[in-house]
Amino acid sequence: MTSFSEFAGRHPFLDVGDEVAAALSQGKAVVALESTIISHGMPYPQNLATARAVEQVVREHGAVPATIALIRGRLRAGLDDAALENLARPGDVAKASRRDLAALIATGATAGTTVAATMYVAAQAGIGVFATGGIGGVHRGADQTFDISADLIELGSTPVTVVCAGAKSILDLPKTLEVLETYGVPVVGVGTHEFPAFFSRTSGLPVAHRVETAADLARLVDAQRRLGLAQGVLVANPIPQADALAPDEIDGIIEQALTDADGQGVTGKDVTPYLLARVSELTGGRSLTANVALIRNNAAFAADLAVEVAGLSA
Amino acid sequence: MTSFSEFAGRHPFLDVGDEVAAALSQGKAVVALESTIISHGMPYPQNLATARAVEQVVREHGAVPATIALIRGRLRAGLDDAALENLARPGDVAKASRRDLAALIATGATAGTTVAATMYVAAQAGIGVFATGGIGGVHRGADQTFDISADLIELGSTPVTVVCAGAKSILDLPKTLEVLETYGVPVVGVGTHEFPAFFSRTSGLPVAHRVETAADLARLVDAQRRLGLAQGVLVANPIPQADALAPDEIDGIIEQALTDADGQGVTGKDVTPYLLARVSELTGGRSLTANVALIRNNAAFAADLAVEVAGLSA
Amino acid sequence: MTSFSEFAGRHPFLDVGDEVAAALSQGKAVVALESTIISHGMPYPQNLATARAVEQVVREHGAVPATIALIRGRLRAGLDDAALENLARPGDVAKASRRDLAALIATGATAGTTVAATMYVAAQAGIGVFATGGIGGVHRGADQTFDISADLIELGSTPVTVVCAGAKSILDLPKTLEVLETYGVPVVGVGTHEFPAFFSRTSGLPVAHRVETAADLARLVDAQRRLGLAQGVLVANPIPQADALAPDEIDGIIEQALTDADGQGVTGKDVTPYLLARVSELTGGRSLTANVALIRNNAAFAADLAVEVAGLSA
Ligand SMILES: [Mn+2]
Ligand SMILES: [Mn+2]
Ligand SMILES: [Mn+2]
Repeated sequence: MTSFSEFAGRHPFLDVGDEVAAALSQGKAVVALESTIISHGMPYPQNLATARAVEQVVREHGAVPATIALIRGRLRAGLDDAALENLARPGDVAKASRRDLAALIATGATAGTTVAATMYVAAQAGIGVFATGGIGGVHRGADQTFDISADLIELGSTPVTVVCAGAKSILDLPKTLEVLETYGVPVVGVGTHEFPAFFSRTSGLPVAHRVETAADLARLVDAQRRLGLAQGVLVANPIPQADALAPDEIDGIIEQALTDADGQGVTGKDVTPYLLARVSELTGGRSLTANVALIRNNAAFAADLAVEVAGLSA
Repeated sequence: MTSFSEFAGRHPFLDVGDEVAAALSQGKAVVALESTIISHGMPYPQNLATARAVEQVVREHGAVPATIALIRGRLRAGLDDAALENLARPGDVAKASRRDLAALIATGATAGTTVAATMYVAAQAGIGVFATGGIGGVHRGADQTFDISADLIELGSTPVTVVCAGAKSILDLPKTLEVLETYGVPVVGVGTHEFPAFFSRTSGLPVAHRVETAADLARLVDAQRRLGLAQGVLVANPIPQADALAPDEIDGIIEQALTDADGQGVTGKDVTPYLLARVSELTGGRSLTANVALIRNNAAFAADLAVEVAGLSA
Repeated sequence: MTSFSEFAGRHPFLDVGDEVAAALSQGKAVVALESTIISHGMPYPQNLATARAVEQVVREHGAVPATIALIRGRLRAGLDDAALENLARPGDVAKASRRDLAALIATGATAGTTVAATMYVAAQAGIGVFATGGIGGVHRGADQTFDISADLIELGSTPVTVVCAGAKSILDLPKTLEVLETYGVPVVGVGTHEFPAFFSRTSGLPVAHRVETAADLARLVDAQRRLGLAQGVLVANPIPQADALAPDEIDGIIEQALTDADGQGVTGKDVTPYLLARVSELTGGRSLTANVALIRNNAAFAADLAVEVAGLSA
């Protein structure tokens, strides 16, 4: 991988892949993709298959995929297959949020990048649209623990549009939406007035704005950019109906998982991984299938959006 | 309305009225005014009469008023009478905070701008002083709901001086002051060491700094600007004694309104409008009279301040 | 004190001492030091003796000390002995956090600068490394009071490396670490995986990253700077073993002090000074000895770090 001349020297630790760099320099559509879903979000080899499939979906919708990760101390936007496989295989791969970048770069580490870190890198590379599964948010019990994902503050300070399927209902969704409102982040539903709950299409919680098409959203995203606002746009794109779990079912499963975590004395940083694994068990793996489906759906919509945005700038 | 050449091209969605633009280019005093008080804060036609009266007060104190709003997808600083009337009449007027600007611009909407959005526009237009009634803050029960106004984060990140009569005691004033402290916002009392409570002059809560005159405050505001700090200055200007409600009376009324809201099952986003309407009823309309008086008082002081600040820069 | 020409005009209220300015212009190591520890943190004359000793430690480790304060309305980076003594003697010396700077400058006041204000001045002066005792944080009971130090938001927005011995356990350390994580601040332990608790070396709480040497940390700090991140780096450097209080002992003393504060009806802003004084009494002054030891230790490590960072840039 060579680094494109426009970026060489501009960012001391970032290599932009040739195809991505060429697309950016020509004003063509690019979609950033995160990599903790590869390194920490799914088991091998489903993670690798999903990463490849998601890139393919972006291409089929007319955009260039730019999967972002930290590889041996260098930030990358645009990974070749060897790098994808390296992230996907069980091994010594860290998890990098914004606060971890300097430490991991200084030690030459390899890491999947979280939503927050991926937004930072996308902004640095000049990529305005990013697709992921779900964002982090305010954790249940955060009124006592103050456990709030750095993704929310990143959305309040980094102007990248993030297409997600909402946030997992293991989080406290009402508080998550309040924090986004406080920090001035537009939350836009795609074909819905409700904030979706990742595995299900509804949460009962309203979003501030609604669009029906990628073209409509592109005008909003373009206005956000031209206003010069520091905030990103959070696009809430519900999981396809065919893949969705029923809200009541998944809520019951999450309650069960929370009860089990409590009963087993799971606390602190161990709670979230425990809950996600338990939800996977309790759904008999249907949560993993749903997860793959919604990521593909988000990648497709993000690519459509990137194409529309590129058209506005042309 | 023509847009002044200095702004044309500088901001793609902002039209600055001729009189405002001329004053700015000549270094003369300008006072920004918000418009949700017109569109959502008072009934017609009192809202229109108040908007006109407040502009007149600014003029009488030697400054040019720049009422800020979103009109058919364009931001405006400086409204003609037709635009004021359009905002004031019951109709399809939205409410725009920072997070709403892009969506409303993209759809060509008309909206009153909140304190947060008005600060953003004022900063873009180069207007440093802004008068309003009261700011948003931390809502009662926010330790459970996380409901905190975007105005507070805007004060922490946009360098505009906001003259207000404190915050309504339907909010949690101690928590509101804590958040302002955490985000580095100077809160300055005018002739008082106490943070005023909108309808009443006192809250029992200290402010960090006190000034006696607009000239003294101008030196502080000028220092804040020259320090290059991102934060605005929050000026707490108590309601005139003659118009103030007694703290015990208004506190009792707010307690009553909170009890009524609870009894009627009012929750979520409906609580604040319910409380304000109920307070108006329970005071027999005296809260509306007080509201008008304090806004006029803030506009006068903001104009005096803007004149002093303009004098320092001359 | 003359102000170095590079700074004259660049910052309207900042005078950088000759020795500091010369070192900065030559790319030599400089360490910023705060001054509320002089004005408000220790009794006279121990405060003056400590201030002088800490500057001496910085010199012995090859860096130039730049104690930062507000002197008669001018910010200073680099104080002569008369200014140190002025701050140290009981008298009319204010305490300046970020929110206080404009008001105190406008009135020509003299003040010790908090961690937050010192970070701001250091960044303005171009000083990247700063040593202090302990940072402010989330106060116990903040879930109800929302009392959170401005130091945390400053760390989230000002790119200065702060070397401290953790935060006092009169604070809520788990919540303090959560807020730092939410705002993207790297917290790095020196020779430890635990966040130290000021008077003691351990808290049971993990930090995200660990370094063994100043040279290792310099690479991390350099990466943070070259990434262009807005956040500072928080370096958690445990108090030397010989000076540390046992965790159980100091925890018991803090519990006692909290009980006493409650019993005496101490509330609000009076709680922290009461607790610190009570802890000093209950330790028979050993807390003051420990405080001096850890500040010297932090100054030494910060100087080593500044030397290493200067070496990387050379
Ligand atoms: Mn967390
Ligand atoms: Mn709210
Ligand atoms: Mn505090």
